[in-house]
Amino acid sequence: MTLDAVLSRIDSDLPHATERLMELLRIPSISTDPAFAGHCQTAADWLVADLQSIGVDVEKRDTPGHPMVVGHVAGDGPHLLFYGHYDVQPVDPLDLWDRDPFDPQVEDTPAGKVIRGRGSSDDKGQLMTFVEACRAWKAEHGTLPCRITFFFEGEEESGSPSLVPFMQENAAELKSDLALICDTGLFESRVPAIVTMLRGLLGEEITITAPDKDLHSGMYGGVSMNPIRVLTRILASLHDDQGRVTVPGFYDGVPELPDDIRSQWQGLAFDHARFLSDVGLSEPAGEKDRTPIEMIWSRPTCDVNGIWGGYTGAGFKTVLPSQAHAKVSFRLVGDQDPHTIRDNFRQMVTDALPSDCTVDFTGHGAGRASVTETTDPVFEAARRALTDEWNIPAAYIGCGGSIPIAGHFQNILGTTPMLIGFGRDDDQIHSPNEKYNMESFHKGIRSWARILDALT
Amino acid sequence: MTLDAVLSRIDSDLPHATERLMELLRIPSISTDPAFAGHCQTAADWLVADLQSIGVDVEKRDTPGHPMVVGHVAGDGPHLLFYGHYDVQPVDPLDLWDRDPFDPQVEDTPAGKVIRGRGSSDDKGQLMTFVEACRAWKAEHGTLPCRITFFFEGEEESGSPSLVPFMQENAAELKSDLALICDTGLFESRVPAIVTMLRGLLGEEITITAPDKDLHSGMYGGVSMNPIRVLTRILASLHDDQGRVTVPGFYDGVPELPDDIRSQWQGLAFDHARFLSDVGLSEPAGEKDRTPIEMIWSRPTCDVNGIWGGYTGAGFKTVLPSQAHAKVSFRLVGDQDPHTIRDNFRQMVTDALPSDCTVDFTGHGAGRASVTETTDPVFEAARRALTDEWNIPAAYIGCGGSIPIAGHFQNILGTTPMLIGFGRDDDQIHSPNEKYNMESFHKGIRSWARILDALT
Repeated sequence: MTLDAVLSRIDSDLPHATERLMELLRIPSISTDPAFAGHCQTAADWLVADLQSIGVDVEKRDTPGHPMVVGHVAGDGPHLLFYGHYDVQPVDPLDLWDRDPFDPQVEDTPAGKVIRGRGSSDDKGQLMTFVEACRAWKAEHGTLPCRITFFFEGEEESGSPSLVPFMQENAAELKSDLALICDTGLFESRVPAIVTMLRGLLGEEITITAPDKDLHSGMYGGVSMNPIRVLTRILASLHDDQGRVTVPGFYDGVPELPDDIRSQWQGLAFDHARFLSDVGLSEPAGEKDRTPIEMIWSRPTCDVNGIWGGYTGAGFKTVLPSQAHAKVSFRLVGDQDPHTIRDNFRQMVTDALPSDCTVDFTGHGAGRASVTETTDPVFEAARRALTDEWNIPAAYIGCGGSIPIAGHFQNILGTTPMLIGFGRDDDQIHSPNEKYNMESFHKGIRSWARILDALT
Repeated sequence: MTLDAVLSRIDSDLPHATERLMELLRIPSISTDPAFAGHCQTAADWLVADLQSIGVDVEKRDTPGHPMVVGHVAGDGPHLLFYGHYDVQPVDPLDLWDRDPFDPQVEDTPAGKVIRGRGSSDDKGQLMTFVEACRAWKAEHGTLPCRITFFFEGEEESGSPSLVPFMQENAAELKSDLALICDTGLFESRVPAIVTMLRGLLGEEITITAPDKDLHSGMYGGVSMNPIRVLTRILASLHDDQGRVTVPGFYDGVPELPDDIRSQWQGLAFDHARFLSDVGLSEPAGEKDRTPIEMIWSRPTCDVNGIWGGYTGAGFKTVLPSQAHAKVSFRLVGDQDPHTIRDNFRQMVTDALPSDCTVDFTGHGAGRASVTETTDPVFEAARRALTDEWNIPAAYIGCGGSIPIAGHFQNILGTTPMLIGFGRDDDQIHSPNEKYNMESFHKGIRSWARILDALT
């Protein structure tokens, strides 16, 4: 009865909720680039003011990097924590965007209205689904339904260097009964889902130096070692002919999928061919003896996310460069230890160097995989609430991405994480023309209202 | 007697000659980047005006690319042609320059005065050595010593696309008894030299496309083919374990070095260890059964001059890119055919592609190697003139770089080329902080005066 009133208010307030999201999207809070640090502060300030408007006792909290936003409302019943991140990915290549990434707009598309702009899906739009659900609840009831802690981070897209220390220092304040995390998607873009299996992530940047200055390949070509030749040889050796990663010990701690989960995943109507054809491909490129859904949700990977060296402008320059660079990431599962893998990767690269070359490494984040047990009845309650909203049975699924925060809630605070999100596969997060469907935003807000009702 | 007067005038006019060179160096005539096309026109105009000031009948001649500068003075005796190029290499990485590359300056260094700036050595400084020798000769004698054609190009650093058609269309005008080319260096930075063996050059740019858009490696990593992985595997396969290039048929037409030349090169005091240690290296990286001087002067090579793909900015981005790119060049010797090698390289790359990937190729220049016979007595005359100026016996040597113009004079015009230059190994041509020693400039001008005297 009162839930219906909250849902009605959400429907009627959607234009204003969209306007508020647009304001937040206009702030270019790119966390990985120091030039945008001031904008990260602005985004945090915006969230503080917005939460204050619904009665949250909230403040911006300094870290050595970008600030956290932490707020509380008192209440009876369970203590819920909601986590989201206000930082966004870089926007290059900018020329592939059809509009200014930070001048968002609602667009009509054949698939319905979408909100277009950097961060619309990852994660500002998702973060605001929960805030808007609370706003509507408060407007109808005068209070929120239980004790709630809001916890927003500004470094998720840059390896979250301040997160673990902050959680450790503020463990008593952040510990709660359940941590709701909104940074995942619908299964197959239409089935509401709770993610219970997440891959970990290890990032490494390597720089190989051969001659100590850029040379002319006419004078030195053939005699001087070319660092690009060394780098390509090392990167090409990271996978064997079967698509397996060759870093020593890489598969230590990688579990085989339990039969019950394997059969549950086989029961999901996952269209492998469409998943690939959507991006112009026809054949899975991973380990030869695995299905695509296994590759994405339960197998570890290695990818080169960036490479550069020598002359990369228009035309040609016969330079023999001094240095070549690459950014390499590993997705981890099960009990793979990111620190051991980092050590083994660095040793493997170092061992492969010709005597005249040197290598420098920079670490970019190291998070383990996490698996959540769903035995606590709150999971079934949330799953039913999602099913009611979307009129499709909600599913427990895995996720190929890495959301280290889920493991941190478990390991640092002893708090169970619950990952629910409304993104779609074609949201183009981390890519040009990122968008969030208006349906994701609208039904996402309604979903949280139902979940709050079900859990309290 | 009159030569002495010319040499004295060169000495006393050196400050003014340096000022003139500085003016030319201030024009950023980067030929490979279309944004600098206007500056290439300006450099050509400057040369026209400067040659007019010493009585040359000269004009700027349009081409589909950057203009040629062609001038003539009538006279008796042999018809000499002098070739140089007024365009320069790009300047990136700009942050490695200690000064604005186009704000040249004379600097005092432990090795003497140097002229610092892009193009100081390659090739504006070298080009002006001949012009200044003519200016001094004209001032002393009232005329130049013989019929001379000046021929300056503006596309040497970008593959000379207009050169061959221009030479073919103007063959009657450009045909001469001897073509003097000033775009090479002193041997070991101190021995004056005439280059008689030049490597050819083939440039190729490749773009590999896997998915049709940038993807998030969390969602697609392990399933979608990564074009960087494909590119690194292909580039790593271009050399075998012995340092030999693996393109099919690559060594067809590569001659073994004749015994007499091999023994002459062994007689040169070429310090392999110092050549490498000057650039921070200790071991030659080329074919395992060749000496460094053979590798540079007489063996073909393959080098990756540029590579890029994915996220290359600060921080980390777990993108799985749609495309990866590389610029690859081959230095050619003997009868290697650049067009056959281009075809074979493209076929090799195409054959190595996974079924889901596509590749695009862009050609950047294709020039054969050239070898000059030194039986014409003008070579010994020029060698003696160089020996007199530098007080060191001048040498006939090979050169690792590619100066296709030498072959074009032979093949298109039937004119013998003579390559004499005064650059040093540490001039950092094509690199940040390019310089030209004041001694190279000064004694270079004097060398040409002596050569003009010896040949007429």
